[in-house]
Amino acid sequence: MTPPGARASGEDSLIARYFRPLATDPGAFNLVDDAAILAASGDDLVVTTDAIVEGVHFLPADPPDTIARKALRVNLSDLAAKGAAPAGFVLTLALHKADDAWLSSFARALGEDAAAFGCPVLGGDTVSTPGPLMISITAFGRLPPGTMVRRTGAKAGDRIVVTGTIGDAALGLDVLRGGKVAAALAGEAAFRDGLIGRYRVPAPRNALAVTVRDHASAAMDVSDGLAGDLAKLCAASGVSARIQVDAVPLSPAARAVLANGAASLETILAGGDDYEVLCTVAENRLAAFRAGAAAAGVAVAEIGTVLEGQAVPAFVDGQGHAIALSRLSYSHF
Amino acid sequence: MTPPGARASGEDSLIARYFRPLATDPGAFNLVDDAAILAASGDDLVVTTDAIVEGVHFLPADPPDTIARKALRVNLSDLAAKGAAPAGFVLTLALHKADDAWLSSFARALGEDAAAFGCPVLGGDTVSTPGPLMISITAFGRLPPGTMVRRTGAKAGDRIVVTGTIGDAALGLDVLRGGKVAAALAGEAAFRDGLIGRYRVPAPRNALAVTVRDHASAAMDVSDGLAGDLAKLCAASGVSARIQVDAVPLSPAARAVLANGAASLETILAGGDDYEVLCTVAENRLAAFRAGAAAAGVAVAEIGTVLEGQAVPAFVDGQGHAIALSRLSYSHF
Repeated sequence: MTPPGARASGEDSLIARYFRPLATDPGAFNLVDDAAILAASGDDLVVTTDAIVEGVHFLPADPPDTIARKALRVNLSDLAAKGAAPAGFVLTLALHKADDAWLSSFARALGEDAAAFGCPVLGGDTVSTPGPLMISITAFGRLPPGTMVRRTGAKAGDRIVVTGTIGDAALGLDVLRGGKVAAALAGEAAFRDGLIGRYRVPAPRNALAVTVRDHASAAMDVSDGLAGDLAKLCAASGVSARIQVDAVPLSPAARAVLANGAASLETILAGGDDYEVLCTVAENRLAAFRAGAAAAGVAVAEIGTVLEGQAVPAFVDGQGHAIALSRLSYSHF
Repeated sequence: MTPPGARASGEDSLIARYFRPLATDPGAFNLVDDAAILAASGDDLVVTTDAIVEGVHFLPADPPDTIARKALRVNLSDLAAKGAAPAGFVLTLALHKADDAWLSSFARALGEDAAAFGCPVLGGDTVSTPGPLMISITAFGRLPPGTMVRRTGAKAGDRIVVTGTIGDAALGLDVLRGGKVAAALAGEAAFRDGLIGRYRVPAPRNALAVTVRDHASAAMDVSDGLAGDLAKLCAASGVSARIQVDAVPLSPAARAVLANGAASLETILAGGDDYEVLCTVAENRLAAFRAGAAAAGVAVAEIGTVLEGQAVPAFVDGQGHAIALSRLSYSHF
């Protein structure tokens, strides 16, 4: 006789309790199956995967709701930069323990973002780990066949465009760590909170996806630092670039700490975690690109020009002098 | 001027060095883009995700090549059970450090399995972690629209079928941990090695996928233990079941340790890590199913019958007496 105590395993209960309510897409089968379905359509499927790790991409003290949003949004940002419409995601959650308050808050925020961005949860795996918390998400997007915007299409003469503002997330991390930026903004709670918010909860530019797809020659999202990511895009396209540092869009908080010396230009240009779209646009598509961005409500700034050659992109000041950057981006290893 | 030391980040170098050679699929874009493409087709896309964690799903001393194979194969096993043909995968690799010998061996084995199973790497993310090594894979399969084999289709009267042999992996783990099984098999190196091999490198039944799709009423892979996974399948289908324990296929090694008392029936039926296909087949499809399995070269065994009702599946001995199992499966929490 099977004992009366026999029941669904802890992992199944956890999934049922916290994540099943989010699984509203029919292809998720209420998370009771081994796999999900992305139904056949005329579209190409864009697949991207990004993990965030406690102590590396977020801090142990970060609230569970912001961790959930960041885990999904870093992937949504990739879909936006590729010109794809979100179609769904699967997640792997590696947990120390199943803490009810933490999981409730995490799942609620994940569900809110999934609904807000039209990117439903399709499935997942929950595993125990003695190590740091980690969330790995694989996200899917759809777009017409052959229209994914690659890193490889930038051509000499194209304008280089970036969305939003750059550097805020790296500065927010400094605030959370109690660094120089925190000290410099000691009397400026709104600035501090704004920067922390940019570190904890990126604002992926999915509203711009169709405009990127229609008009950009190359695109990627800025995750590891503008300088390093631009270098990658240029390398993939076989081109170089010149960036007017004065044209890089900065928030008032970033301008303040740059002006008073609490943060370096390097932190801003190479700090990472921006999750803005970096793209190149041919001169004759720029007006249409700008109109699309305006209609989407996404701020865009022209920051430089694609050049011929293989040189690492140059960052120049208002007098045309190149600025040395000792590092280009964040690296895990 | 950008300093001459500026170069691709460590993570990019790592991906280029170890994983780019594996990215032979055109949709992987040589891993130089932010995303991969699964090209539009008339098929539904099956999506499954499973992670393996050091100390939980594999042991710190396990060789990197077997870790790579297990990480991919636990996902391939899901595709097989759903009736899908492998289409590709993305991986997240959370590493303590970038060790050349380890990564070389890991990547080589991953590439060999990707080629052998027709499941190319499409992309990935590599992150550093101070915690245990973890590999999370999301795998994709294709099948004709609406033909994914669910857990929900089992009907009273259907026969219950399982592939291969059950319990070997759990016994192999006991051998690796130096438990009773190791002691009982002290003089039987071939048995020990065979069981260890079953724990470290599952044999997913992808050769059976089309047969499952054509003839099974419900299916899943056995990953957390036959007893628990059958209970899940029955719950999803709203049915019960009776299993003839004598009919559960066991390897000679498993028979030996069961006979001499070194392992319990519970370890075998609830131990997990089998990665065999468990499915239900209507009586009138059984001959065709068996023929398909024979043609695919996959051993299958009838182990019981689907019953009406909601009771947890019963495991009965040769005299028809129910056998008590104090646990049904492995649980992470």
